[in-house]
Amino acid sequence: MAASCSDTRGAMERSIRERVPPLLTDLYQFTMAYAYWRAGRHQEPAVFELFFRDNPFSGGFSLLAGLHDCLHFLQSFRFTDEDVEFLRSVLPPATDPAFFTFLRGLDCSGVTVHSVPEGTVVFARIPVMEVAGPLAVVQLLETSLLCLVNYASLVCSNAARFRLAAGPRRRLLEMGLRRAQGPDGGLTASRYSYIGGFDMTSNVQAGFLFGIPVAGTMAHSYVTSFTSLEEVWPQTLKAANGDQVDFISLAKGWLSRVCTRLEAESVKIHEGELAAFLTYAVAYPQNFLPVIDSYSVACSGLLNFCAVALALSELGYRPVGVRLDSGDLCRQSLEVRHVFRLCSQHFSMSSFDSLIIVGTNNFSESTMSELNKKENEIDVVGVGTHLVTCTKQPSLGCVYKLVEVRGSPRMKFSEDPEKSTVPGKKAVYRLMDTEGHPFLDVVCLAVEPAPTAGNPLTYYLRGEDTSRSVTPTQVMCLRQEVFTKGQVTYSLCNAKESRAKAQSSLQTLDSKHKRLQDPDTYPVAVSEKVYMLVAEIRRGSSTNSNFLLSN
Amino acid sequence: MAASCSDTRGAMERSIRERVPPLLTDLYQFTMAYAYWRAGRHQEPAVFELFFRDNPFSGGFSLLAGLHDCLHFLQSFRFTDEDVEFLRSVLPPATDPAFFTFLRGLDCSGVTVHSVPEGTVVFARIPVMEVAGPLAVVQLLETSLLCLVNYASLVCSNAARFRLAAGPRRRLLEMGLRRAQGPDGGLTASRYSYIGGFDMTSNVQAGFLFGIPVAGTMAHSYVTSFTSLEEVWPQTLKAANGDQVDFISLAKGWLSRVCTRLEAESVKIHEGELAAFLTYAVAYPQNFLPVIDSYSVACSGLLNFCAVALALSELGYRPVGVRLDSGDLCRQSLEVRHVFRLCSQHFSMSSFDSLIIVGTNNFSESTMSELNKKENEIDVVGVGTHLVTCTKQPSLGCVYKLVEVRGSPRMKFSEDPEKSTVPGKKAVYRLMDTEGHPFLDVVCLAVEPAPTAGNPLTYYLRGEDTSRSVTPTQVMCLRQEVFTKGQVTYSLCNAKESRAKAQSSLQTLDSKHKRLQDPDTYPVAVSEKVYMLVAEIRRGSSTNSNFLLSN
Repeated sequence: MAASCSDTRGAMERSIRERVPPLLTDLYQFTMAYAYWRAGRHQEPAVFELFFRDNPFSGGFSLLAGLHDCLHFLQSFRFTDEDVEFLRSVLPPATDPAFFTFLRGLDCSGVTVHSVPEGTVVFARIPVMEVAGPLAVVQLLETSLLCLVNYASLVCSNAARFRLAAGPRRRLLEMGLRRAQGPDGGLTASRYSYIGGFDMTSNVQAGFLFGIPVAGTMAHSYVTSFTSLEEVWPQTLKAANGDQVDFISLAKGWLSRVCTRLEAESVKIHEGELAAFLTYAVAYPQNFLPVIDSYSVACSGLLNFCAVALALSELGYRPVGVRLDSGDLCRQSLEVRHVFRLCSQHFSMSSFDSLIIVGTNNFSESTMSELNKKENEIDVVGVGTHLVTCTKQPSLGCVYKLVEVRGSPRMKFSEDPEKSTVPGKKAVYRLMDTEGHPFLDVVCLAVEPAPTAGNPLTYYLRGEDTSRSVTPTQVMCLRQEVFTKGQVTYSLCNAKESRAKAQSSLQTLDSKHKRLQDPDTYPVAVSEKVYMLVAEIRRGSSTNSNFLLSN
Repeated sequence: MAASCSDTRGAMERSIRERVPPLLTDLYQFTMAYAYWRAGRHQEPAVFELFFRDNPFSGGFSLLAGLHDCLHFLQSFRFTDEDVEFLRSVLPPATDPAFFTFLRGLDCSGVTVHSVPEGTVVFARIPVMEVAGPLAVVQLLETSLLCLVNYASLVCSNAARFRLAAGPRRRLLEMGLRRAQGPDGGLTASRYSYIGGFDMTSNVQAGFLFGIPVAGTMAHSYVTSFTSLEEVWPQTLKAANGDQVDFISLAKGWLSRVCTRLEAESVKIHEGELAAFLTYAVAYPQNFLPVIDSYSVACSGLLNFCAVALALSELGYRPVGVRLDSGDLCRQSLEVRHVFRLCSQHFSMSSFDSLIIVGTNNFSESTMSELNKKENEIDVVGVGTHLVTCTKQPSLGCVYKLVEVRGSPRMKFSEDPEKSTVPGKKAVYRLMDTEGHPFLDVVCLAVEPAPTAGNPLTYYLRGEDTSRSVTPTQVMCLRQEVFTKGQVTYSLCNAKESRAKAQSSLQTLDSKHKRLQDPDTYPVAVSEKVYMLVAEIRRGSSTNSNFLLSN
């Protein structure tokens, strides 16, 4: 049963203070903030960048998600007296009390954020979000922003991969709440799986909050709770034409005919299962879609389904389909479809031509991909654990790095070269070919003039010391201002709109970057100015002024 | 910097309605509830069991966690008008309006829960929680209970494995918030990692809510935000004896001496790093523990640390230690310790004998285990991603199965034999040997007399058809009543108490079951009565009454 429903209800805004209080961060943000404050540096203008180092799932792309939550978080960022009192108990006793007064007055009115819009295709090493503002404040925001972007982007990208694996025709149901990492993980998974390309969720609260279509019918426990036809109540069903009909007798008659036609042994049929289906059909004559593997699909579930569905059809209702939840789903779906066709022909029931088969049995990206290779008749796939926990790679590994203080660039060197950062406040441009396909993202300094269509641009690929040149036909500035002076300046979309944006952003990407296995790497480059700046800082670092001799 | 702090603040109770509203469940719970209600079966007494099918991480045990959240959830389980209105919009238009009135009046006053206590060692296939009550209500609780137990138990068990890998001496810091699956995932991870055996968390909100000791000092951004000694402020530090001292000059003097002693090139030392350390030391003279790999540990960070720490020591303060965050931590920790010993001896600074070395660089269970094999001097390990996302197995796969309705047992057969269930309302006993080590868990029917010490007990192992017998010297009833008539009847513990219980429960378990690789399987058996019941139901199922011929 599925229902498309209401709009976002502003509950994200209402609940963000509950979900992400400003104490939900690492202690070191506060120890650093105090040290900055003590040194009088807390108000210095600083710029941080948020990015990830590798595309998730060994893939060729990611989708940016979580921006909306970040914006609500920034807007509500404020410490209560209780928060501050707790911090006082945690920081050393010698901490200057005036620091806590400072914290109590903090908010994000001095913070400006530029970000790639929610649901945009992005790549490793692109600074997807830039957070500028007073040093102490933008430092304090780190952990919360990372937490909000990391999982949302990961699960959204995972969903997009499942969508690519499934192909455009098959409908996808997210049903991972019970296996998610906590209640909020489940809700986040439902929201961003939908944005990434799923069609429905089993999660009712996600329907309530985000307007995502919700779906679901019955569990095995429902079936096994019945043992006999005596439990069926009411025993009659009003036909579409208004007549009250003895539904049990009608279905039993159909069951006899189905068994005869299929040469099935009626002795193996579970009476409790038939009772469960009958009761369900009486409650939902328009929405009959039972799970048929509680005992045996071939020997019981499918026969009981056909009996009840034929009875419903005779009364003028359209049964919807079946769910398979164990065993070899492809093989079973073929058998089930075969029986549907037989019933349609033999009993002249056209309603059996449009029955759907739902498959739900621990689907992963690879078993989803196999559906395109193995013959099967599965119309709808439900995905839980592998989608919401992102088994292939359960963290995106977003980082948040300082790139500028007081207008001067900052760079982190590292024992591990992969962990070095790219200095300076930047702008990011996406270059498109004549067909509108993006082919190169270039990270420039913010002070550089933007690349323009028709003009050659010099760039450096990562790890290369030779420049290249390209003349784009279209240039898009990838990030936009989304927050300034304490206010959200980005037009927030509901889940449906974000989903449409994500799908259209993915559509423009060349399929070679969307291959699930061994995709072509989408090139992310730096401008000549960025390249020069890195070289200059590296030189400066290796011949650091010998301050030991000075003074 | 670490601080042990306050008790739980009741915020779990306050926030559970926000975190786990009754709509945070799968739609099929409602479609089934309506079908039950329509058939007049909603009040029938039913029993569900919660269990998992395999110990996580290919290990030999798990810890049960999440019970507290479940109890708060049950206590607050109630639908608002808004919830019910949303359900009305989702269920088919023909749904009887009286059903919604029924929902509006629902609560858990008819529900009784028996559970293994929080933090107890448990094994696959033990029904760790039993939920009994009106059929429609206990069905509605399924998804939320699974969601609350699944991740909590998983991450708690993961933490216990990290603790076993680390050995009892090394201190463990959980620092996974930024990589967790959403804000609530991060908070849950912090809570249950502590219960599983971690010592501290970086998550301030977890300290606030659960009284977990919090720790943290500085990020690389703090270090790279400084470029010159001119940024150090104040430039003086009050010595422990009260004198104001020119701290910069003092540290520069020590840096010269350190460089001379170590024959280090002062030209490679980063002035900005020294400025960062000085500023931090001035803010926290008692808590000096900087991250020393922002540029180069050997050529800059370690020298700057020694200079500032020697200056602090001279002024009567005890520096705390260093953090290493990249590269080969074992090798670096040896070098660092070597230099600490040199400084201690050469400059007669005994404070350098007790400095601690913190290592934080993407630790997994296996790299943690390696610390016991490779020489190193790491005292504290910070763990993030691999702990909180449980990379080795990101879901526990808990299930919730119907075992009894109206006093009569229920069983699910399946196309997949692993998915079949064990019928009947049960009790679970843990048998201990003379030394108090558990050696066998036996699942009995609730109506059976409990096994008693000194009396032989017949049991069947899973997959075996031959009975075995054992005479236990101690028997423990594993589950207890934790909730009845809408009230929690279990004495809730704070995180510290639960942690102590978990550690003592783990301690009694024989080490052969705690081996991280290829542990001995802990046997979980069923009583003779359970075995007979399964056999009887299987027989009954294969010769199901031929209801087609009746009537």
